[in-house]
Amino acid sequence: MEPFRFHLFVCTQQKPEGVPSCPTSGSSAVLEALDREVQARGLDAEVQLTTCGCMGLCDEAPVMVVYPEGVWYRRVQASHVPEIVESHLRAGKPVEKLIWRDAAAMKAMSVEHREKYRQAMAARAKAGKD
Amino acid sequence: MEPFRFHLFVCTQQKPEGVPSCPTSGSSAVLEALDREVQARGLDAEVQLTTCGCMGLCDEAPVMVVYPEGVWYRRVQASHVPEIVESHLRAGKPVEKLIWRDAAAMKAMSVEHREKYRQAMAARAKAGKD
Repeated sequence: MEPFRFHLFVCTQQKPEGVPSCPTSGSSAVLEALDREVQARGLDAEVQLTTCGCMGLCDEAPVMVVYPEGVWYRRVQASHVPEIVESHLRAGKPVEKLIWRDAAAMKAMSVEHREKYRQAMAARAKAGKD
Repeated sequence: MEPFRFHLFVCTQQKPEGVPSCPTSGSSAVLEALDREVQARGLDAEVQLTTCGCMGLCDEAPVMVVYPEGVWYRRVQASHVPEIVESHLRAGKPVEKLIWRDAAAMKAMSVEHREKYRQAMAARAKAGKD
């Protein structure tokens, strides 16, 4: 059994200036709207809302994922939140127009991002040793 | 379809000095060990590893959750990681001794933490207006 019916993760990963990111695309407003709407609709006991770090999908920011279903939403804005809460979290019907279904593309994007990150970290570690 | 077979979330929420938290209980070392072990065991293509913010379960830190199964681990240390990767992520058998199964207790703890956070935020907002 899960502590909550739904566990939402919204990316709030900060990036250097000029780099695309969920926060610069509006994820903080999405997070605030979710917290507000979930309470307003009386779903507080059903929903756990958690911030998360980069999932490597910054080109389609802001990104959020709803578990345990594993429904991924991309380019979510605060204006979409009432529909997400009402349709998905209350009625159990994910909001089709916002769902990102191309798992292969998501995986490729995420893996590419991870590789770049690891290379950057390795280069930084090497520079620290030189 | 999910982009990855497993999606792991490890809490890395920073807290004020003296307050129990996942990072001060070792979550950064857990995260590094997971990244290293997942690669070493050739599971990189199956596992997405993401940091996350506070889930209100700080008294049992460090906490991590594995989706889509929704398996919660508590008091995870870097020394547990090889077993988690080998047993859970490779063989599909979650590590029983580390699983936190009391969903009711988790929910109560998380809700209490959330209420305190909201009260603190409301007090801060009020103080800002005064």
